[in-house]
Amino acid sequence: MASNRPSRFTTRATLVNRAWILDAHPNEAIGEALRFGTLPMPVLEDGQVLVRIHYLSVDPGQRTWMRAEGSYMPPFALGAPMRGGILGEVVESRAAGIAPGTLVSGMGIWGDYCVLGRGEIRPIPADAPDPLLYMATLGATGWTAYFGIVDIGRPKTGDTLVVSAAAGAVGSVAGQVGRNLGCRVIGIAGSAEKCRWLREELGFDAAIDHGTQNVAAELDRLCPEGIDIYFENVGGAVGRAVYPRMAVHGRIVLCGLASEYQRTGPASSIELADLLMKRVRVEAFVVTDYFGRLREAVDALGGWLAEGGLKARIDIVDGLENARDALDSLLAPGAAHRGKLLVSVAAPSRSTTGSD
Amino acid sequence: MASNRPSRFTTRATLVNRAWILDAHPNEAIGEALRFGTLPMPVLEDGQVLVRIHYLSVDPGQRTWMRAEGSYMPPFALGAPMRGGILGEVVESRAAGIAPGTLVSGMGIWGDYCVLGRGEIRPIPADAPDPLLYMATLGATGWTAYFGIVDIGRPKTGDTLVVSAAAGAVGSVAGQVGRNLGCRVIGIAGSAEKCRWLREELGFDAAIDHGTQNVAAELDRLCPEGIDIYFENVGGAVGRAVYPRMAVHGRIVLCGLASEYQRTGPASSIELADLLMKRVRVEAFVVTDYFGRLREAVDALGGWLAEGGLKARIDIVDGLENARDALDSLLAPGAAHRGKLLVSVAAPSRSTTGSD
Repeated sequence: MASNRPSRFTTRATLVNRAWILDAHPNEAIGEALRFGTLPMPVLEDGQVLVRIHYLSVDPGQRTWMRAEGSYMPPFALGAPMRGGILGEVVESRAAGIAPGTLVSGMGIWGDYCVLGRGEIRPIPADAPDPLLYMATLGATGWTAYFGIVDIGRPKTGDTLVVSAAAGAVGSVAGQVGRNLGCRVIGIAGSAEKCRWLREELGFDAAIDHGTQNVAAELDRLCPEGIDIYFENVGGAVGRAVYPRMAVHGRIVLCGLASEYQRTGPASSIELADLLMKRVRVEAFVVTDYFGRLREAVDALGGWLAEGGLKARIDIVDGLENARDALDSLLAPGAAHRGKLLVSVAAPSRSTTGSD
Repeated sequence: MASNRPSRFTTRATLVNRAWILDAHPNEAIGEALRFGTLPMPVLEDGQVLVRIHYLSVDPGQRTWMRAEGSYMPPFALGAPMRGGILGEVVESRAAGIAPGTLVSGMGIWGDYCVLGRGEIRPIPADAPDPLLYMATLGATGWTAYFGIVDIGRPKTGDTLVVSAAAGAVGSVAGQVGRNLGCRVIGIAGSAEKCRWLREELGFDAAIDHGTQNVAAELDRLCPEGIDIYFENVGGAVGRAVYPRMAVHGRIVLCGLASEYQRTGPASSIELADLLMKRVRVEAFVVTDYFGRLREAVDALGGWLAEGGLKARIDIVDGLENARDALDSLLAPGAAHRGKLLVSVAAPSRSTTGSD
């Protein structure tokens, strides 16, 4: 069928649709649970588009989607491709109003191509100066930071905000959003270089290196009146140092628990007496609950970006074949990247783009 | 000074001001940390009233006030009288607008008399059919239940509400408030008789006896779609059975942790992964934060009382000398009372009331 032929890119005969396939629900390290293989080229139906994937979003939360017990989504089926946020180009369309060539983001797969319905894609504005921002500060990463700080943290001017995994994709935006809303911001990160970056380039008021500093003692020194908002990305030992140091009426924004996604340590927990006496609120959220309000987040984040009040950093790993290692690196205690981590798919067939 | 003489009651010479004195900050059982002794008769200053105490409120939270580390209040000073909610009669007044004979409630001491400032007392309405209700359903007990359910729990019609210590003072009101606001209500209590009372007299939809039933299995049976609101009074093993069974977007109203106030078990804690995947909110509160809104609670609770939608039960222990045992009994796993527990002070001088 002609309708199944991504004509702008290459001939059907030369297409390769590589993909990462979930073969098992991993308990600890991902390892062989993800297998690099190939999929048949998908067949389009009415209302769908075929997307040639250019970039994958790599996020700690993806690890929770792979578990047998599921997460905030049902568990992935075995034998199916790994899913994740993608940025790609529509190479064929049977969806009204979406022309081939349109850049789109959405929830796709770790592969070269995927089929998405009209309601599953978000076209990138044609005048966007950098489409990759829609995979970072202006995408789900930024939305998560925005709604976590604004809706769950509810900052007041002068509040002390502590952010864990502060040099990560969401944490680095969350800290800057908090600062833009009047908070004094302290980041906790895993290296001196990350701490320097937070302080000197992102404008955090202070940063704690949990690899070499005593987090509890540093928090006591930096937050003598307690912590008003804690944006929690990691759990584990860092969380244990923070929870007892919340201020009266403090808020813990529970965004992630990356330290335990590989099950290498005990489950992160919080003592309820720490909450009770200080009337602390702990509230978990996921950004998918906010999809009805994305305009608000994009407008605010875009405004800060334009004014220079929000700096974005994107680290890129080349090659779909390296996606599993990229996710592993995010979940390792000593992750080296800062800001948002993407995988550039760079499929073999890409070099033939336009040869048809 | 004539102004220091409670003339309507007795002569100064015959007054005895017994009181419970805190001699130590107890770690486990209260024991000798509270000593039954006497205090000098207090001296009034301008703006104060002398209150002859008739009833003491006995509440699990009082145990936390006795700790060396404090609670949501600073720790009590050693050598000072034990504090608590009281109902009493003004026997002498140097406060404008408060006449001797006025019944008042407030935060007083475990004793025969106390001095309170005008801002520290709440006159009981002269037409109140039963002043003791102001120590229970219409007092701090009822306010706590009301604001916990309404403000923290935010019930929606059809929500499943689970209440621990459901036969206790706050729990029994919280369950009824939730039912009046459209919830299906399940109580957890410590005996078959308490469970019968909850179901048959207070109108709970179901009750679980944690002494003889498997709480987790019963919750699975009664709440197949999860728990929307959990009103937490106890922590410990009961809490551990409830937390993993919250529904998506569930709310845990953290009111108390009575199971650990005597430090006989490990600290109650909650696994954060249980919160994260279901976007659960845990929020602690104390009623003193709501003193600006008491009218709202009293109006709502009074309305339900008048309509028969709220039943009050008050158990009374006779004798100030039994106050410590009464508090101990509240904190013991097998507490026998239902509803609100008060101590009737019945001081020796009471029998001489009016003899002056």
